[in-house]
Amino acid sequence: MSAQDQIFIFDTTLRDGEQSPGASMTLEEKLQVAEILDDMGVDIIEAGFPIASNGDFEAVSEIAKRTKRSVIAGLARAIHADIDRAGEAVRHAERGRIHTFVSTSPIHLEHQMKKTEAQVLDIITDTVGRARNLIDDVEWSAMDATRTPIEYLCRCVEAAIRAGATTINLPDTVGYATPDEYKSMFEQIRARVPDADKAIFSVHCHNDLGLAVANSLAGVAGGARQIECTINGLGERAGNAALEEIVMAIRTRSDVLPYSCSVEPRYLTRASKLVSAVSGFPVQFNKAIVGKNAFAHESGIHQDGMLKNAETYEIMRPEDVGVKATSLVMGKHSGRHAFRQKLEELGYEIGDNAFEDAFRRFKDLADRKKHVYDEDIEALVENEIATQGEQIKVIALTVIAGTGSAGKAILTLDVDGRHETRECTGDGPIDATFNAIKTIVPHDARLSLYQVHAVTEGTDAQAEVSVRLESNGRMATGKGADTDTLVASARAYISALNRLIARQSKPDHQELKAV
Amino acid sequence: MSAQDQIFIFDTTLRDGEQSPGASMTLEEKLQVAEILDDMGVDIIEAGFPIASNGDFEAVSEIAKRTKRSVIAGLARAIHADIDRAGEAVRHAERGRIHTFVSTSPIHLEHQMKKTEAQVLDIITDTVGRARNLIDDVEWSAMDATRTPIEYLCRCVEAAIRAGATTINLPDTVGYATPDEYKSMFEQIRARVPDADKAIFSVHCHNDLGLAVANSLAGVAGGARQIECTINGLGERAGNAALEEIVMAIRTRSDVLPYSCSVEPRYLTRASKLVSAVSGFPVQFNKAIVGKNAFAHESGIHQDGMLKNAETYEIMRPEDVGVKATSLVMGKHSGRHAFRQKLEELGYEIGDNAFEDAFRRFKDLADRKKHVYDEDIEALVENEIATQGEQIKVIALTVIAGTGSAGKAILTLDVDGRHETRECTGDGPIDATFNAIKTIVPHDARLSLYQVHAVTEGTDAQAEVSVRLESNGRMATGKGADTDTLVASARAYISALNRLIARQSKPDHQELKAV
Repeated sequence: MSAQDQIFIFDTTLRDGEQSPGASMTLEEKLQVAEILDDMGVDIIEAGFPIASNGDFEAVSEIAKRTKRSVIAGLARAIHADIDRAGEAVRHAERGRIHTFVSTSPIHLEHQMKKTEAQVLDIITDTVGRARNLIDDVEWSAMDATRTPIEYLCRCVEAAIRAGATTINLPDTVGYATPDEYKSMFEQIRARVPDADKAIFSVHCHNDLGLAVANSLAGVAGGARQIECTINGLGERAGNAALEEIVMAIRTRSDVLPYSCSVEPRYLTRASKLVSAVSGFPVQFNKAIVGKNAFAHESGIHQDGMLKNAETYEIMRPEDVGVKATSLVMGKHSGRHAFRQKLEELGYEIGDNAFEDAFRRFKDLADRKKHVYDEDIEALVENEIATQGEQIKVIALTVIAGTGSAGKAILTLDVDGRHETRECTGDGPIDATFNAIKTIVPHDARLSLYQVHAVTEGTDAQAEVSVRLESNGRMATGKGADTDTLVASARAYISALNRLIARQSKPDHQELKAV
Repeated sequence: MSAQDQIFIFDTTLRDGEQSPGASMTLEEKLQVAEILDDMGVDIIEAGFPIASNGDFEAVSEIAKRTKRSVIAGLARAIHADIDRAGEAVRHAERGRIHTFVSTSPIHLEHQMKKTEAQVLDIITDTVGRARNLIDDVEWSAMDATRTPIEYLCRCVEAAIRAGATTINLPDTVGYATPDEYKSMFEQIRARVPDADKAIFSVHCHNDLGLAVANSLAGVAGGARQIECTINGLGERAGNAALEEIVMAIRTRSDVLPYSCSVEPRYLTRASKLVSAVSGFPVQFNKAIVGKNAFAHESGIHQDGMLKNAETYEIMRPEDVGVKATSLVMGKHSGRHAFRQKLEELGYEIGDNAFEDAFRRFKDLADRKKHVYDEDIEALVENEIATQGEQIKVIALTVIAGTGSAGKAILTLDVDGRHETRECTGDGPIDATFNAIKTIVPHDARLSLYQVHAVTEGTDAQAEVSVRLESNGRMATGKGADTDTLVASARAYISALNRLIARQSKPDHQELKAV
């Protein structure tokens, strides 16, 4: 296989994905996501938009310092301050990249930027040059490329390459292209732009019409060699191309898609679960590759075929993407050593204090629950990680509710070391519980998401609750897990509230996200 | 525009969609789905697989009788009894269709059917001929067409057309094809098969590699004029091509996809919600067209552009697909007349008894809830429809739970007119409630899904709970809505249990589903 055939996977879950309304992640969550992306062999991780806020800057810097293999990219508008800040954030990476972008389509130039084509060409030369003075690896994106006339797009790409861009990304920003058009755009640009072979071309597709994966592969057929994508297809509106679909399409159909990529598929399921958990975005059952039904066969005819020969209906093996049979592994007699080994197997490394807390909660769970599955342990540990260092904690909750009367909650919280107890009513037990929280810790945040998942099967499953709070344009998502949905709900609300309070002490950064 | 350009939309939500593990629907639910498909202008509705069970037969027959515009198709294996039964089921339709299929790929012939190519050709001639003797509109499908050598596929298609098939469907059964391959298959078949122009060619794509929509459009570019698809992309494994994505791709990109289809997009959101509710399959936030984020813009740069000119970031208008701003409409002072009018606006026609029950519950809700949104009313009415004629009903529930002790539930059920009360404990309030149900109505079903959605925003939102029970290979999904999650959970469980009991008096039909 020639070097030509290598496709670089550029993951933007932490940048374009995090831009999804409501998917904001904390620093700790971003570090976890970056770690698994690095482990799975993603070539480039776009870790954030450093100028957007101190939090974003900190996340990109911290990921740059910790990442072992992946290139770490920081996003920057076509503005000097953005580029300098991005350069500063990725400076500590083994290999850093500045990714700068500007709109090129007439509709964006006229209505949003109010600039002429000539002005934008000058901006490209100036900003790419500035980035290139800071770092050798510079990506330039033509925002809304698919609605830009090809003549002008050629001139923009030429200017970017001349100014030193090493990667040229031509995104389908509004999810508008068809595969034939997208392929043809790359073919034309690569044929017409002088020195086109000096840069790697990149696709970046949105899924508004359900064509993001096909468009990405069509762009590659047209000569692109980098694919920008996200775990679970997270991203604004209908999201980006899903990394797991891209990777498995390339692997499964290597006969007609003669490319290789370095992502190790067995991490896909774990990465999907992690991103779903930290974003609070559930994965639909019939999501390709990572949905819970992706490898499930219901019909008798299919089942019959599967038993005779798996290939009759299955083109991928579930174990290739890290799906494992839910296994009964731990029980009330399991000790510290077994528990730590299990955590390592599941890919968790946690500090001693967190381990002790997690172990205590595991024993407690094993007492109450017949079967303790891997998923239960994952939920428990993630809960433990999520609640570290929080100001407010749930100490005790008793709820009385039902058909006859309003729900009543008696709640004790630890607020900065002080225990406070209140009794409140509400429309149902959850409303009553949340009212009690509001009475103890008055705040004006609005509940914009409340979601319950059963982590494992059966009525003794742990419930995992996600709560999202919004206040003055800021939002925070919290999770809580417990066999009691109400306790899990209280934990999730408090977790979101802790994050919101932490965020309110930082400057606003919602205005600045893009591409 | 020439007749050539019309694309026929063939919806198989009720057949291939219902085959998704856990998505089984009741007769009443199927009738609701069929009605909205007919209203929205779907050309062909595949209503079920009549030989599979009496329930399937009844559903197809009943839909055939009631549908006004759409062609009603019934599925049949390449077996006389199947074909005759399908013919009988669609007999009452204004326009009926028998859809018969047989595997054509070497892997299916060898491992599953254990037949030679020559034998399968004879089967095609025989079974298509038999169908054509019963009805003028006959569709034949080559199961696993995309893994069938083109030479043999040509001979199969030729045999089917000669025997009288009017539609030839070439499915990508395992979700394996790429757009280029799929297009080329149609081009080759249409070029090489004598009398190919006597049949309409059809695409049927699965989304295992995320390519279902692109493959469908590629098949059309190759000459197909029917697209088989499902609402929300429901279907086995990663599902089928999503109807809403197909329809909006054709409409939005009519400049490069010069086809028309008769589906009215403003029904898409309602159809998506209905199918999600009856199947118990949530739609992910970033699902194209119908996800709650599909038209949401978070980033400041995008929002800025949107305010200046919506076209900067939006290629479709939300109102085109039936997304409406959540409107405050009803309150505690609204009367029967206003409530009935609102129900009509929302598209519900319910009988007088159900109306009175729904109105009572609406008044009750309006007393407890500040704002009653359309979604609240929808949840309430769907709950009412779902619980009609059930054997077991929830009369009263009181739950005490929290951190300190095991959950306790005191539950009163009406079982065939008798009231029974029990007190039970459990791991949390929901487990306690479900244990109480099991004590009053002993049964061995396994809980395989427990899911909570907040129907509207805020802590006084109604919770909508879905519960799926499985017993001896049969499953049933139930829903319940209430401001109290625990009451909603009890209702959902009882609703699923009622359905399961109803189903257990009918013959099994899980072994027979296919394509």
